[in-house]
Amino acid sequence: MATIKDVAKLAGVSVGTASRVLNNSPQISVHSYNAVHNAVRQLGYRKNAMAKALVRSKSETIGVLVSDVGVPFFGALVKGVDNVARQNGRHVLVANGYHDAHQEKEMLELLLSNGCKSIVVHSKGLSDDVLSRYCQEAPALVLINRHLPTARERCLYLNNFQGSLDACNELIAKGHRQIAYVCSNEDIPDARERLQGYKAAMDNAGLHFDINNVYFGEPTDEGGRVATTALIHSGKRYSAIATYNDSMASGTLECLQDNGISLPRQISVIGFDNEYIAGHLYPKLTTMAYPISHMATCAAQLALDLESGMPVKADMTHEFKPTLVQRKSVIERR
Amino acid sequence: MATIKDVAKLAGVSVGTASRVLNNSPQISVHSYNAVHNAVRQLGYRKNAMAKALVRSKSETIGVLVSDVGVPFFGALVKGVDNVARQNGRHVLVANGYHDAHQEKEMLELLLSNGCKSIVVHSKGLSDDVLSRYCQEAPALVLINRHLPTARERCLYLNNFQGSLDACNELIAKGHRQIAYVCSNEDIPDARERLQGYKAAMDNAGLHFDINNVYFGEPTDEGGRVATTALIHSGKRYSAIATYNDSMASGTLECLQDNGISLPRQISVIGFDNEYIAGHLYPKLTTMAYPISHMATCAAQLALDLESGMPVKADMTHEFKPTLVQRKSVIERR
Repeated sequence: MATIKDVAKLAGVSVGTASRVLNNSPQISVHSYNAVHNAVRQLGYRKNAMAKALVRSKSETIGVLVSDVGVPFFGALVKGVDNVARQNGRHVLVANGYHDAHQEKEMLELLLSNGCKSIVVHSKGLSDDVLSRYCQEAPALVLINRHLPTARERCLYLNNFQGSLDACNELIAKGHRQIAYVCSNEDIPDARERLQGYKAAMDNAGLHFDINNVYFGEPTDEGGRVATTALIHSGKRYSAIATYNDSMASGTLECLQDNGISLPRQISVIGFDNEYIAGHLYPKLTTMAYPISHMATCAAQLALDLESGMPVKADMTHEFKPTLVQRKSVIERR
Repeated sequence: MATIKDVAKLAGVSVGTASRVLNNSPQISVHSYNAVHNAVRQLGYRKNAMAKALVRSKSETIGVLVSDVGVPFFGALVKGVDNVARQNGRHVLVANGYHDAHQEKEMLELLLSNGCKSIVVHSKGLSDDVLSRYCQEAPALVLINRHLPTARERCLYLNNFQGSLDACNELIAKGHRQIAYVCSNEDIPDARERLQGYKAAMDNAGLHFDINNVYFGEPTDEGGRVATTALIHSGKRYSAIATYNDSMASGTLECLQDNGISLPRQISVIGFDNEYIAGHLYPKLTTMAYPISHMATCAAQLALDLESGMPVKADMTHEFKPTLVQRKSVIERR
């Protein structure tokens, strides 16, 4: 690729003059101006964004750490950040941490080493302490889905409790009383908060919360199948099932149908997250939407504001509420 | 963030000495070595990857241009490139071009301006001529899903014809004779080649290829529904439908079921691409797998090889063949 030296040589001017022309300095002769721009065109010269970034000591990129960009939820997150980046003439540097503490740390180090100032992080592996230290070091690092007491104003998170409460209330409003819960066996706040939402909805409605109506599995299709197998084997009668997420709900739907249960006629199922698959399941899944695109957009904008030294707006939304998406998997109890 | 000047000052050495210590130069005194490394630890100093990249005139990032990282197919592509990047201590710079010529061009310019040498491109908007010029300018630019005569050795593409032929042959092997084709109405090689595969399969089997058995729509769920509505209205009897892609197949399955047709009992449906949704549809979709992760990995490795001046291996695979994924949507004709 042509350098500014090549441009200066072809234009017959000094590198300093060529640089001043390209940076639109005043007091450039018409001759130099034309000679340099002709040389730029002939050589296909491009100003080097890295060189500019280095001079300005400011990165052109926004870093984003997700679990796995191949998973649609995180693809949507990256896309939300990218939309903000484009509007600000920047690119997105993507790092996959696979929700593993070691890999997340390594990737954060790499983003910082690459000069990223604005960074949007979705971490599950790293502890609050470690993330707090990164927040101190990187003043424009913003966290999605964490709730750090030491960096409250830089956290954007979902109200999992309220979302799960609303999901169960939707089942109760449709006349269901025997409601099971298919729960993630991961020991993370999301899992605990969503289970608490189910418990609160049952208690509020005067229904009997019983841990024996909670069935556990990995937060995946297969985990949903495992939990639902245990549910069927229990011999208990349920008219509805609330689930930890849409992946588990997908396994639940399959397992019920494989066992001759007609859906949604015999059992209603509600999901959580409104993942990419939700509208393609059979029956189409009624679920709670996780507004990840919107949250990613807000997070990226906040990071850029912090990078440029603006304070966090007092009225900024930090807690986001899932919304109900009605499809076909929940019906009135007969 | 601390600079090398801060390190040198705290260590009580010159910037040059500090730099030599950090670059592991020989002939450094033990005193300087310890002083500099202590200062690095105290200040949390990181070598700036951008500065290093600039000095070496070599980018630390691999650029990747896709249509939309929020779509699982492209998420898988980015992940494939990222895996190779990680193995080589690099990051991925992602650009979304939304299959629009203008946006694809703008994003390619930005990747080049950011100093990306290795670039993996999935373009549908740009012409062969424009892409050829970019290939000349960027010797480590690799194309997925294009077939440029001027840069043959840097193109990795799918054999769409063979994939579609194999898909239809699977239907024929299961005893189907009345086979319709749900076709994309986009005027791109993928659409033409897949239609030709259907035609060839019908001809080879001595069945009557008739363009009236081809139903067109956008290459989306909704397009599949539109094409299948026309198919139902035609009043013709089919026992199987081959489709342009899984999204159209999804719309086809839904439309058939909405109209009281029992699947797969009355009609078998085969997809193409093995998208993220394929295993979640009802019935689970039998389809042809597009090996996008594998192709992305090969493309990224090729780009890095080209960047480091290695020639393209003579035995390298450029053409990839889709493989059959058997699920539940295709059964023996009764």
